[in-house]
Amino acid sequence: MDAVEKANSGHPGMPMGMADVAAVLWLEHLRHSPKDPHWLGRDRFVLSAGHGSMLLYALLHLSGYRVSLDDLKQFRQWHSRTPGHPEFGETDGVETTTGPLGQGFANGVGMAIAAQMEAAHTGCSMLKTRVLGIVSDGDLMEGISAEAASLAGHLQLDNLLYVYDDNRITIDGKTDITFSDDVAVRFRGHHWDVYQMNAHDVAEIERTLTQALGNLRRPTLVIARSHIAKGSPGKQDSPEAHGAPLGAEEVRRAKQALGLPDEPFYVPEAVRELFAKRAQVLEAERARFEERFEAWRTHHPEGAKKHAALRAFTPPADVLTELLAAAGTEAAATRVLSGKVIQKAAALFPRLVSGSADLASSTKTDIKATTSVQAGMFSGRNLHFGVREHAMGAVMNGIALHGAFQPLGSTFLVFSDYMRPAIRLAAIMKLPCVFVFTHDSLMVGEDGPTHQPIEHVASLRLIPNVHVLRPADGPEVAAAYAHALQRTDGPSILCLTRQNVPALERAPGFDVRDLLRGGYLLQDAPGAAGTLVATGSEVSLAVAAARLLQERGTTVRVVSVPCLEVFLAQDEEYRRAVLPPGLPAIALEMGRPEIWCSLTGSLERVIGVTRFGASAPAGVLAEKYGFTPAAVAERVQQMLAAR
Amino acid sequence: MDAVEKANSGHPGMPMGMADVAAVLWLEHLRHSPKDPHWLGRDRFVLSAGHGSMLLYALLHLSGYRVSLDDLKQFRQWHSRTPGHPEFGETDGVETTTGPLGQGFANGVGMAIAAQMEAAHTGCSMLKTRVLGIVSDGDLMEGISAEAASLAGHLQLDNLLYVYDDNRITIDGKTDITFSDDVAVRFRGHHWDVYQMNAHDVAEIERTLTQALGNLRRPTLVIARSHIAKGSPGKQDSPEAHGAPLGAEEVRRAKQALGLPDEPFYVPEAVRELFAKRAQVLEAERARFEERFEAWRTHHPEGAKKHAALRAFTPPADVLTELLAAAGTEAAATRVLSGKVIQKAAALFPRLVSGSADLASSTKTDIKATTSVQAGMFSGRNLHFGVREHAMGAVMNGIALHGAFQPLGSTFLVFSDYMRPAIRLAAIMKLPCVFVFTHDSLMVGEDGPTHQPIEHVASLRLIPNVHVLRPADGPEVAAAYAHALQRTDGPSILCLTRQNVPALERAPGFDVRDLLRGGYLLQDAPGAAGTLVATGSEVSLAVAAARLLQERGTTVRVVSVPCLEVFLAQDEEYRRAVLPPGLPAIALEMGRPEIWCSLTGSLERVIGVTRFGASAPAGVLAEKYGFTPAAVAERVQQMLAAR
Repeated sequence: MDAVEKANSGHPGMPMGMADVAAVLWLEHLRHSPKDPHWLGRDRFVLSAGHGSMLLYALLHLSGYRVSLDDLKQFRQWHSRTPGHPEFGETDGVETTTGPLGQGFANGVGMAIAAQMEAAHTGCSMLKTRVLGIVSDGDLMEGISAEAASLAGHLQLDNLLYVYDDNRITIDGKTDITFSDDVAVRFRGHHWDVYQMNAHDVAEIERTLTQALGNLRRPTLVIARSHIAKGSPGKQDSPEAHGAPLGAEEVRRAKQALGLPDEPFYVPEAVRELFAKRAQVLEAERARFEERFEAWRTHHPEGAKKHAALRAFTPPADVLTELLAAAGTEAAATRVLSGKVIQKAAALFPRLVSGSADLASSTKTDIKATTSVQAGMFSGRNLHFGVREHAMGAVMNGIALHGAFQPLGSTFLVFSDYMRPAIRLAAIMKLPCVFVFTHDSLMVGEDGPTHQPIEHVASLRLIPNVHVLRPADGPEVAAAYAHALQRTDGPSILCLTRQNVPALERAPGFDVRDLLRGGYLLQDAPGAAGTLVATGSEVSLAVAAARLLQERGTTVRVVSVPCLEVFLAQDEEYRRAVLPPGLPAIALEMGRPEIWCSLTGSLERVIGVTRFGASAPAGVLAEKYGFTPAAVAERVQQMLAAR
Repeated sequence: MDAVEKANSGHPGMPMGMADVAAVLWLEHLRHSPKDPHWLGRDRFVLSAGHGSMLLYALLHLSGYRVSLDDLKQFRQWHSRTPGHPEFGETDGVETTTGPLGQGFANGVGMAIAAQMEAAHTGCSMLKTRVLGIVSDGDLMEGISAEAASLAGHLQLDNLLYVYDDNRITIDGKTDITFSDDVAVRFRGHHWDVYQMNAHDVAEIERTLTQALGNLRRPTLVIARSHIAKGSPGKQDSPEAHGAPLGAEEVRRAKQALGLPDEPFYVPEAVRELFAKRAQVLEAERARFEERFEAWRTHHPEGAKKHAALRAFTPPADVLTELLAAAGTEAAATRVLSGKVIQKAAALFPRLVSGSADLASSTKTDIKATTSVQAGMFSGRNLHFGVREHAMGAVMNGIALHGAFQPLGSTFLVFSDYMRPAIRLAAIMKLPCVFVFTHDSLMVGEDGPTHQPIEHVASLRLIPNVHVLRPADGPEVAAAYAHALQRTDGPSILCLTRQNVPALERAPGFDVRDLLRGGYLLQDAPGAAGTLVATGSEVSLAVAAARLLQERGTTVRVVSVPCLEVFLAQDEEYRRAVLPPGLPAIALEMGRPEIWCSLTGSLERVIGVTRFGASAPAGVLAEKYGFTPAAVAERVQQMLAAR
């Protein structure tokens, strides 16, 4: 109440409504270490209802994390440890960034999968840690939670328990204006175990959680019938309490009703003692874990080695060279070349796990040397996410957050729209997820406009901290993986073709390290009238157009820009060498053109696509949309003449 | 089989697996009119599993729609009536564009809601037509279908029935590698009625569908245990049959097994006769409907008038003037101004229905003079979509497709990511949906980076055929609604502020019709050194910066561009008058800058945001991110000097 009041902004209702449950969960069940927030043996606590951040901050403060009373007083202020919604990386003990509803739910599923996998991969059952969390009706209304629940039930995750804060209040009124699911039945349909309890009867909470956690044999939902803003005489059970301060007078009344002194940020001594006692218990538990884990390592050198390969991994010396060899230089679809590179990458990066939203046979992202993760069988490295792109993204984030594995997930580029909120969160959290999106242009062909990306490459580039890579051939595919797998501060997206692309010719003496600089001069031309800039499948088109132009007496240089973000981050000298300022640059990409103005200076010098595609064979579409060598050469000539 | 074979591309498995069910549905239950595909009294058939398009085209052909055998032979070819996935507007009898999974499921829910509403609004129960469809396991794995099913169950739609093609085969193998939901239990949890049947026992299909449709008292799922590629001796029950031609030899074998001659595109005479007979029955039914409907109109002049207002609506003469009066000229948040305009718009446009994903109290989109749509009560015009943005988008599409209403839906701009696939389909289908997205910049403040849009305005502009409007004050909000409500060939998106914005001063003699031209000169300045271009809340910031610059001796013009797409579509003369080519243009928008290069020629002349936001009061963020009048004036001066 006090922190929200002081910030004059925030959500007091949920923290008050869930305080009883959270207290029991943290004081009796959650295994964690305030002294070592990254303790391997810890349970993950996920507050999917991230707007209830003050509940989490209060728990972290009381538990002894680096969250002081002063930090609580800085709630929602610039660069504080207590931002409006929990932000991973900003506050010790915050396991994931939540707020956009449903994401935390699915992150937790990812963490639970990762813990099962870490235990199975190493053979160390102690590592099968648990995920405990709190979810709201908003989380359960979002489709992503249904996807994640279905996947969790399929995998029979016996290390996942969520308490559902069933307060029956939503922002616009009572939940019964829009939500009347029988949640228990629904989750049983997903093969979860379901319990019910009164969220304000401590004995019942203790009994129920003890029973549920004692019998965790599949994912479990505990429906806690609660009252939002519990303890506030005037605002309990009221939608107003969801997202606005209670008001000074109501805070005063609530404290009176709760028997608390009228003093801001007051913590009763008895509460401090309870948490201090719990901290002692937890530290003893951690010490026991460390001792047992050390013993396990001694007795299981093979397992310990595998564990080190996951948790203390350093990439091999020359990843690029190895992946270049794996990619080869043959002409093929970049998705096929990617499929070859992945096999080598999986050997070099034991942390890599690969999954697909039911399109692995098309995206070619299965790791062949391993098996599929299934219920009770977590030693494989291939994940079947099902037709659940959104959950795939958020589960990948959960796997990355857990820390033992680096997740790769694939689908068609056009369906990246289904998982965009999860990609954005990967970028905010700086997670090294690898998204592989194939069928990356109009050249999808017959499947038509619903399956042909037009705006997707461009709009993914707009998400801050995302690297979008659109490789043109085998060497560029190899470099894209070298980049993505070694990136540590954010996600990478690979956009790959369905159709075959030619192998590019590079000048003798070409420095392969330039493949990692986002853009490079592929083909020089003395006395050139301009530079043709292209990505992915359009690079070979640019080369073909340049050849035609040369036949007509106009020479142009060809530059490949597999990753615009990385190229723009190069030093000015390099950028100017690739794109000499005096020479007009013309960009060619089979998608929305606007973003290329930043290189060409004008929309008139970008050859792109601004309307939806159509159902027809790819070759026909290339003709109709002007992406043949002749059509491109013609337009380049016009553009150069129009100067 | 033959069409897919001829195209050498497509999905034969689903059409073959669902042929028995579809035949019974179309020959015995579906009310429609091949002679009048837009018949008011028709049931809507939704093929949510759009990849099974050949099933639908075959049914349309046999039923007598304008789909000839030649059209079937043109399957998946350029500009044919039989594109790879069903496309609304391209083929008579195709009620919605499907393919991206789950969308059709939710479109059908929207159509069913709209039919209930049309009946309730007019008092004509005959208009409560039904929605019948086929959905696949892919549809049911997508979260959007869970959201839509939950909403449909909440509203107890007694005019919606889906057959679930339970073929247990998915692209990557058997569904049991990833999908083990008890679908019947799950849907009962959503308060649906559930039936089960064998998809290949015609008597059982007849019995089940007759029973289910005879007792339709809530949304109903009929689980049809089927075999993909039924009838193909070698490929039945095989994942290969999903998305690739069977192959000439297998087609031959299948025809042999089915007792059909080895002749492409052969239709048995008995089948033709069955469908011809059904067509006669349907035409008689349509004639009866028309007669009864005419009688209803005669006896219910009030209802008939209301019906005409929905179905034969022409907008009033001067919408803009009326809405300008409603908006007023006071300083307020544009979401608040929008709330005022909506009330007037609802009076002028009886077709307008408004909903929100549980944020109406923040987005201010409720229509005050009406009630909420609830189970059994469909006479209101406010929809509670719940925290289900994705279903909201697709349900809106369904409402628009139904044809009686124009849907408006609202949430926070950052959550537009959750519904992007539905927005894209609205654009592809040219539906006049109105999406209202508030809290449109960093100025969201304390809620932090997860709630602060950075890339959203820009990335929505990239979807072809979407008009993104970001109004700056009351008059611009009025104009945005005038535009969106009168647009007939695609969706409009309004981006509105959370925070207050000042009322802009316009020169005497300002022509308000310029508000509809996407961009206009707000403030001239003789001898200006440049033009400052801004949108939304940044227009008043540009005005304030211009004032500071003037004090320092630099004059700049100020241009407001509430809708870039509309502005770029104006004639060159107008555009040049607004942005004289000789004068440097500098763009100012609190979001990704790249798209503005198309006006400024250079990224160096755009003031935008390229990194994520942070949790802090809005005023602090304005300081930190350089969006104060002083900071903007400073940067403009530098930019003008750098020329």
